Amino acid sequence: MTPLSARSASLTGLEHLQSIVDGTVPPAPISQTMGFDLVEVAPGRALFAGTPTAAVYNPIGSVHGGFAATLLDSAMGCSVQTELPAGVGYATLELSVNLVRGITAETGRVLCEGRTIHVGRRAATAEARLTQEATGKLLAHGTTTCLVTDLSA
Amino acid sequence: MTPLSARSASLTGLEHLQSIVDGTVPPAPISQTMGFDLVEVAPGRALFAGTPTAAVYNPIGSVHGGFAATLLDSAMGCSVQTELPAGVGYATLELSVNLVRGITAETGRVLCEGRTIHVGRRAATAEARLTQEATGKLLAHGTTTCLVTDLSA
Amino acid sequence: MTPLSARSASLTGLEHLQSIVDGTVPPAPISQTMGFDLVEVAPGRALFAGTPTAAVYNPIGSVHGGFAATLLDSAMGCSVQTELPAGVGYATLELSVNLVRGITAETGRVLCEGRTIHVGRRAATAEARLTQEATGKLLAHGTTTCLVTDLSA
Amino acid sequence: MTPLSARSASLTGLEHLQSIVDGTVPPAPISQTMGFDLVEVAPGRALFAGTPTAAVYNPIGSVHGGFAATLLDSAMGCSVQTELPAGVGYATLELSVNLVRGITAETGRVLCEGRTIHVGRRAATAEARLTQEATGKLLAHGTTTCLVTDLSA
Repeated sequence: MTPLSARSASLTGLEHLQSIVDGTVPPAPISQTMGFDLVEVAPGRALFAGTPTAAVYNPIGSVHGGFAATLLDSAMGCSVQTELPAGVGYATLELSVNLVRGITAETGRVLCEGRTIHVGRRAATAEARLTQEATGKLLAHGTTTCLVTDLSA
Repeated sequence: MTPLSARSASLTGLEHLQSIVDGTVPPAPISQTMGFDLVEVAPGRALFAGTPTAAVYNPIGSVHGGFAATLLDSAMGCSVQTELPAGVGYATLELSVNLVRGITAETGRVLCEGRTIHVGRRAATAEARLTQEATGKLLAHGTTTCLVTDLSA
Repeated sequence: MTPLSARSASLTGLEHLQSIVDGTVPPAPISQTMGFDLVEVAPGRALFAGTPTAAVYNPIGSVHGGFAATLLDSAMGCSVQTELPAGVGYATLELSVNLVRGITAETGRVLCEGRTIHVGRRAATAEARLTQEATGKLLAHGTTTCLVTDLSA
Repeated sequence: MTPLSARSASLTGLEHLQSIVDGTVPPAPISQTMGFDLVEVAPGRALFAGTPTAAVYNPIGSVHGGFAATLLDSAMGCSVQTELPAGVGYATLELSVNLVRGITAETGRVLCEGRTIHVGRRAATAEARLTQEATGKLLAHGTTTCLVTDLSA
């Protein structure tokens, strides 16, 4: 579980994420390590893009499932964050991922869009789809269950 | 879905993975990118170890859930692979992950053990637990559903 | 895993389900036991409706999570079935369910719509949402992973 | 989500469940509808038993996946409940189920054992396995994510 830091507690979730898109706040180190970026946010929605390389391959010549899981988790968590007021944080409790097509370096740029399903006072759910940008083909999809927490409590 | 390569089709799954542990076959590039290694395999079991660093952090000062998901996916997939004869491959269809404690660089070395639950002729399931080595505390756990495929068919 | 019976192997999945909607083939016994019906099918889509009663309550005065899980499983499995040609069956490998609002006898009639996400040659995924008919409020949602099997093989 | 009723708030979770095993408190109506009983509880553990009949069949001649999902949900939720003090309730947020072998009326009596994995202050996880009593063969397994709530707050 990843409590939202004190530093960002004065911004709404959407403001915090927009500042990452705008480049005024640094992105997640893991996004540089794995090669993806947050490119767009709106209420209930977060879009990431990335281009998988050999650095995220498994031993048998294709992209590791962890690449898709990391992107889907990012997109789903951030979509929940876009709906949270200042002073309210969230933590991912659970993540389910379906891998429906293999991914390789030839897949090229991929898009991962997360959307909230239900944001309640104490828990939230969201879903995301990972697609190949060139063709729109679905590569993977997922759902998540998050805990919503009042940081001032 | 990640079909097992033709090159490894002459080895059993366990032989293939043991050669990675022994260092005679190179590990997954993603394991170097994210900082973990396959350290032990046995029938129905695979153990990974790693030490999370700032390179796998999320924007809010802790380890991204994708780190745990990638390790759990690796451990579960490899545990299934240990039970497959030569000429039989597998692909991860689905992955569920629960994150139960936050992880930071201060967590230190972590262990991730995967164990098969059921390996059938056409599908297999496995589970894994991610723990802090120093304390044995549970950090995350997961289950997976894999497709088992006859590579000669 | 539930292989499709030999009897229905001459119909497409959609034809088989339409005959249940039409009443020319008897519904699932469990649908009478738990109080729901298949009311509409179309390619990639299946709609169930039901009215929960005290017969599906848990010990603490509300509808058991198994009621939602059973409806979601039915809707998702049937949505996959609508896309299968004659001679091809499926089996549910995995099912994930999120319960987002409590259900009681006062909830009244509920609708459960399943939709396919990806139907491949060997595996398929689908999702479903359970809503209160009177208000359209989301009660639960889920995803599934199915094995697709050639019954003639 | 299913808040624990006010009536049972003076008992620990284990005391409440033991009174169902002992028959001094009535069981869940759904357990009679679907044909299973809570037979044993201990800290971190709950055991159900049942015998599937034609009443829980799908349209194609075998037991509906909802039967396994309902039993697994019951066993996992109750295992969490055994660890909760008086005045603390829980609600199932999410449930994942894997179906590994078909079930029919010939399967006979089945056992479903739930065990907690992690019970925290705000969330809990548990797992369960459904087996054929006569052979010990695994039929299905699952995991759950629960919200833990202070009923006095």
